[in-house]
Amino acid sequence: MGKVSQKNNDTEENTTEFNLVRVKSTWKCKLPQKVNKDTVDCVSPAKIYESITETGTTWTVVSPIIFTYKVTETQGLLDPSNNTLLLGHITDPQQLEDIKISNKPIRRFIVIDQEVFKIYGIKLTKYLEVNNVVYKILALPTTEENKSMEMALNILNEVNNFSLDRRMEPIIAIGGGVCLDIVGLAASLYRRRTPYIRVPTTLLSYIDASVGAKTGVNFANCKNKLGAYIPPAAAFLDLSFIQTVSRRHISNGLAEMLKMALMKHRSLFELLEKHGCMLLDTKFQVDNSLYGHSSLKAASQATRIAITTMLEELAPNLWEDDLNRLVDFGHLISPPLEMKVLPALLHGEAVNIDMSYMVYVSQESGLLTEEEKQRIISCMVGLELPVWHEECTLELIEKSLQDRLKHSGGLVRMPLPVGLGQAEIFNNISYEILHRAYKKWCDELSISSDGNCDP
Amino acid sequence: MGKVSQKNNDTEENTTEFNLVRVKSTWKCKLPQKVNKDTVDCVSPAKIYESITETGTTWTVVSPIIFTYKVTETQGLLDPSNNTLLLGHITDPQQLEDIKISNKPIRRFIVIDQEVFKIYGIKLTKYLEVNNVVYKILALPTTEENKSMEMALNILNEVNNFSLDRRMEPIIAIGGGVCLDIVGLAASLYRRRTPYIRVPTTLLSYIDASVGAKTGVNFANCKNKLGAYIPPAAAFLDLSFIQTVSRRHISNGLAEMLKMALMKHRSLFELLEKHGCMLLDTKFQVDNSLYGHSSLKAASQATRIAITTMLEELAPNLWEDDLNRLVDFGHLISPPLEMKVLPALLHGEAVNIDMSYMVYVSQESGLLTEEEKQRIISCMVGLELPVWHEECTLELIEKSLQDRLKHSGGLVRMPLPVGLGQAEIFNNISYEILHRAYKKWCDELSISSDGNCDP
Ligand SMILES: NC(=O)c1ccc[n+]([C@@H]2O[C@H](COP(=O)([O-])OP(=O)(O)OC[C@H]3O[C@@H](n4cnc5c(N)ncnc54)[C@H](O)[C@@H]3O)[C@@H](O)[C@H]2O)c1
Ligand SMILES: NC(=O)c1ccc[n+]([C@@H]2O[C@H](COP(=O)([O-])OP(=O)(O)OC[C@H]3O[C@@H](n4cnc5c(N)ncnc54)[C@H](O)[C@@H]3O)[C@@H](O)[C@H]2O)c1
Ligand SMILES: [Zn+2]
Ligand SMILES: [Zn+2]
Repeated sequence: MGKVSQKNNDTEENTTEFNLVRVKSTWKCKLPQKVNKDTVDCVSPAKIYESITETGTTWTVVSPIIFTYKVTETQGLLDPSNNTLLLGHITDPQQLEDIKISNKPIRRFIVIDQEVFKIYGIKLTKYLEVNNVVYKILALPTTEENKSMEMALNILNEVNNFSLDRRMEPIIAIGGGVCLDIVGLAASLYRRRTPYIRVPTTLLSYIDASVGAKTGVNFANCKNKLGAYIPPAAAFLDLSFIQTVSRRHISNGLAEMLKMALMKHRSLFELLEKHGCMLLDTKFQVDNSLYGHSSLKAASQATRIAITTMLEELAPNLWEDDLNRLVDFGHLISPPLEMKVLPALLHGEAVNIDMSYMVYVSQESGLLTEEEKQRIISCMVGLELPVWHEECTLELIEKSLQDRLKHSGGLVRMPLPVGLGQAEIFNNISYEILHRAYKKWCDELSISSDGNCDP
Repeated sequence: MGKVSQKNNDTEENTTEFNLVRVKSTWKCKLPQKVNKDTVDCVSPAKIYESITETGTTWTVVSPIIFTYKVTETQGLLDPSNNTLLLGHITDPQQLEDIKISNKPIRRFIVIDQEVFKIYGIKLTKYLEVNNVVYKILALPTTEENKSMEMALNILNEVNNFSLDRRMEPIIAIGGGVCLDIVGLAASLYRRRTPYIRVPTTLLSYIDASVGAKTGVNFANCKNKLGAYIPPAAAFLDLSFIQTVSRRHISNGLAEMLKMALMKHRSLFELLEKHGCMLLDTKFQVDNSLYGHSSLKAASQATRIAITTMLEELAPNLWEDDLNRLVDFGHLISPPLEMKVLPALLHGEAVNIDMSYMVYVSQESGLLTEEEKQRIISCMVGLELPVWHEECTLELIEKSLQDRLKHSGGLVRMPLPVGLGQAEIFNNISYEILHRAYKKWCDELSISSDGNCDP
């Protein structure tokens, strides 16, 4: 860059700050000291900075957009007398009142996972009929292989045919993470942003995909390569959907729950350690096991903690601008592993293999005791999650961390557990430790994973 | 909705507000009164409200995202000694310093309108070569007919092949509004958000598409039906590109400039009235006409006012959440008109026909005098813009206003000039006035537009 010599003269001396004030219908730039709150209708939180140099004029716009969304755990979402699905996203009491007294039927466009529709379609249809809703249900095979822009565009075509009113008619997505991610992206694109509602029907999407702002589709063989950060208007969570999820997919969701436990919440870890098997057996339906001193039950306790700890990490970092993220635990080496062996490993399974290795790294670094490490691995096994995989080679690990380095502003930012339910971000784990941890990990776990002796 | 009876119990009594504080790597919810700024590393502007009712728990997340972007008017953007195109978007002085002293070549992915590439391709290539940039230039036929998701996906494929680094390598778009809109959307989707840079090469995109946050593509035969509200990292504006724009496309841009003049800026109107013809003749290249008391020249004065007035309206309403928008003037009946006669009318031409009719509505409503109306219409004619069109029927007008009513929360929100360079939003213009204005508009202007007597 030696050739580029012109100076960037953005010094403060020649920069003027302007507030934006509205009088009737017109916005005006005003110097901050000239803003008289009595004579203006509104002062915007946005600002404009004007800076004039020899090379030209620069206006810097600083404009905050406030995202507001609800995550609601409820029961009987498809019970015709429960109005949450239709009205639960509305925050303005006046608007709610207007809708309730109006006799215009509500209109809703619904995209639902085809498999979920097979099980819950009749109930959903009845719910809509009883509530006099004008609706269109689009049941689609929202599988990981179909998670593409093509499917998003198919949805958008149907949305357009429905003549959806962007202001009054949020798009409803009902299904696992794949369905919620595709529909969320489609809605975010329609007329530059149409509200949407998430109804998760798998454990993984219940505690993870429903809670944040991310949407996405796969592209060029990369997971979620295209997407947006637009949160839903609301996510409505009803555990009863989980009763029909396969045992393997329950384990899959438990992996993300365990992630939050290991990063932030010792009691959640202990709960999973103690009641994991029961949760798998009962699919979060029977809430009869008292946990600790609390009178709350294991299933609702576990989902509640998983959601609140996740919200704590996501709310201050909705657009992932801060690269130091505990929620990335288990997501450093799992994405290429998941894609490499597709469809052998589910997302949570790949995440768990990543976490299992990282637990060895922690222990090797002196951040976890041998006993803590053992407890974590045993808990994983109890949750019926794989703790090792032959395709998770040292090469793949090193390559993933290199990639991470490249896309995370030059630091690897590895979240690692430091004790049970606590974690920190590390940037200086040596290759030596990575190697030693890898060897120990293989030595100790390659047998237990595939049932064969692997000398 | 009579059947839906369950109450929405979001009363304040059972709602708890939480702040989010960070200690080391971990975010925690804290009651506001328990936040001790001395013991935490960071307090987030985000908040979580937890509300527990009989029917379940709701967490409401409120999280502001701050958008910051630069609009820079400069000269000699493709002069190899000007580093604005490569570094002008960087706001952190340390990062700028690091790049300047680093000897790693800069990498850039550039999408450019094919016609613009024919004219400026050699200059651009030389600029990149001299500055030792590793680059890929994608020259595309970014026409209105090709403004589709398909083209956005083509771009994304190439971006992916380039192995673009989302943190360090903003995508650069060079062209008219079509090119800027498609590339902006593609970049906004890539890895959920990749910074991009806008370099407008038409007058319309110089003063309009470059200044705000909107991106988009056409879909299902509707203009900009899919898109996003993600501003560029920076827009770099260089008037010299305009010298090769056709006279008709200069007029086209002047229409959007006139819009801002009529809504907000009497002097800009007077400037266009006085110097419009000169600006058309010189294509904004010769800045020798003194304007009023100011020593600034007409071309730079006009673009400067157009940009600042536009910024004033856009910055406080970046995501268009406020439906009362002066910048919508000329955009109430023009979108269906533009699509109906495509490709007969350019965007600014359709906008001007809309504005011309609205001026009659204003005058008929007593908001403009007959003389003011005449001055505005004469100015339009001077800018070589159409002021009437036979396809702009009363039916089309009424249908457009009905649609507007539907998509604008039940109010028509008509921006109308009240005097020269001032405007307000009206919701109660009667059909009678719309009819009378229409009749007068046809009587007075249908002749001048097509040159024939139209009795
Ligand atoms: N947006 C986010 O923040 C986020 C977070 C985590 C994961 N994800 C995404 O979520 C996806 C994984 O989600 P998933 O595990 O839910 O996968 P999924 O959506 O593929 O669902 C898994 C399977 O369960 C079936 N199913 C769903 N609900 C059912 C029910 N109630 N009863 C019976 N069968 C049911 C589905 O048909 C599918 O076969 C991935 O694509 C991942 O990228 C997104
Ligand atoms: N994002 C926004 O806020 C916003 C605002 C206004 C308009 N727009 C969009 O912008 C588009 C219209 O923009 P436009 O009028 O620039 O159209 P355009 O991009 O189609 O360009 C017009 C023509 O000029 C040619 N051209 C461009 N630069 C040239 C140059 N320097 N010399 C010679 N020829 C040149 C192009 O090849 C094209 O043929 C519409 O699609 C509209 O929706 C977007
Ligand atoms: Zn995950
Ligand atoms: Zn326009």
